[in-house]
Amino acid sequence: MNGPGSPRSAERIALHLVQTEAESVRQLAQAILVARERIQTCRTCGALTEVQPCNICSDPRRDASLICLVEQPVDIISIEKSGTYHGKYHVLAGKISPLNGVGPEDLRIADLETRLRKETIKEIIIALGTDVEGDATSFYLAKRFAGTGVKTTRIAHGLPAGSGLEFADELTLSRALEGRREIH
Amino acid sequence: MNGPGSPRSAERIALHLVQTEAESVRQLAQAILVARERIQTCRTCGALTEVQPCNICSDPRRDASLICLVEQPVDIISIEKSGTYHGKYHVLAGKISPLNGVGPEDLRIADLETRLRKETIKEIIIALGTDVEGDATSFYLAKRFAGTGVKTTRIAHGLPAGSGLEFADELTLSRALEGRREIH
Repeated sequence: MNGPGSPRSAERIALHLVQTEAESVRQLAQAILVARERIQTCRTCGALTEVQPCNICSDPRRDASLICLVEQPVDIISIEKSGTYHGKYHVLAGKISPLNGVGPEDLRIADLETRLRKETIKEIIIALGTDVEGDATSFYLAKRFAGTGVKTTRIAHGLPAGSGLEFADELTLSRALEGRREIH
Repeated sequence: MNGPGSPRSAERIALHLVQTEAESVRQLAQAILVARERIQTCRTCGALTEVQPCNICSDPRRDASLICLVEQPVDIISIEKSGTYHGKYHVLAGKISPLNGVGPEDLRIADLETRLRKETIKEIIIALGTDVEGDATSFYLAKRFAGTGVKTTRIAHGLPAGSGLEFADELTLSRALEGRREIH
């Protein structure tokens, strides 16, 4: 691992900090404290926000009948960057993972059910990852919401954009074939 | 580039060959000649084969009403490895690419139209890559086959298997959202 959370990066940052002017380090520490204090979780959707409810939840131009269910707050940023989604969000705050001791009751599912009762939601778009836990959680949720009259969909699995068949693994190819759609 | 077709690999192979026992090199050269002589293009689907028609075209257990359209013969191997497809194939032998001077008449489209008339084909599954040329070729073909009564589908675009949202680019995410499917 060599990403922002790797031991190597941590070491690099630590070495940089102890060699930086004391005043700059003090300012950085202060900024970290303020950010930690101001950023909270939106009580409605679970996104990171400075205001309650968050800017997406309170935006009247967004389609309130659509909820996109994501694993973590950072996934909202990914989807917002794609610029194609105009509904609201709900952060699950994890995936069902018996091996790691995470059950449905550890996730923000009850909060979502409260929203289903209070708001007029027509569709829940499950945008979890395509790994085993993502699959299991998606099927669990689809089953749990089956009686509510809300449509449950899942984002497509398939070939990533700009890619050829030669770069796709077997499971991706078989899901891409299975999920084929008619061209009109 | 460091793949099998890179200058680096070519150099490595060349250096290996000139230092190998002469008899082994002669056998290798012979094997290459025989392979080149025996392997032909299937006159029906365009796959690489030693017999006419190829083993897939002549297999009665495969669904003859489905044709999977691929760019190159090697794509057939990728899809066969996924083990989920049981129809037949057709190799387009390229993609429409005006910048490279490749037009529809340079591809095996007329051969496919001959097959559409002779065989009882219900669906053409376009399994081209998801780059600009793949998109353009897919739409061109869908339009061209629109009057034939054959259903034209395209393999799904979306998140590759085993992946999370954080690894997907914006275009892939927007196509994954757009191609979402209901879970039952």
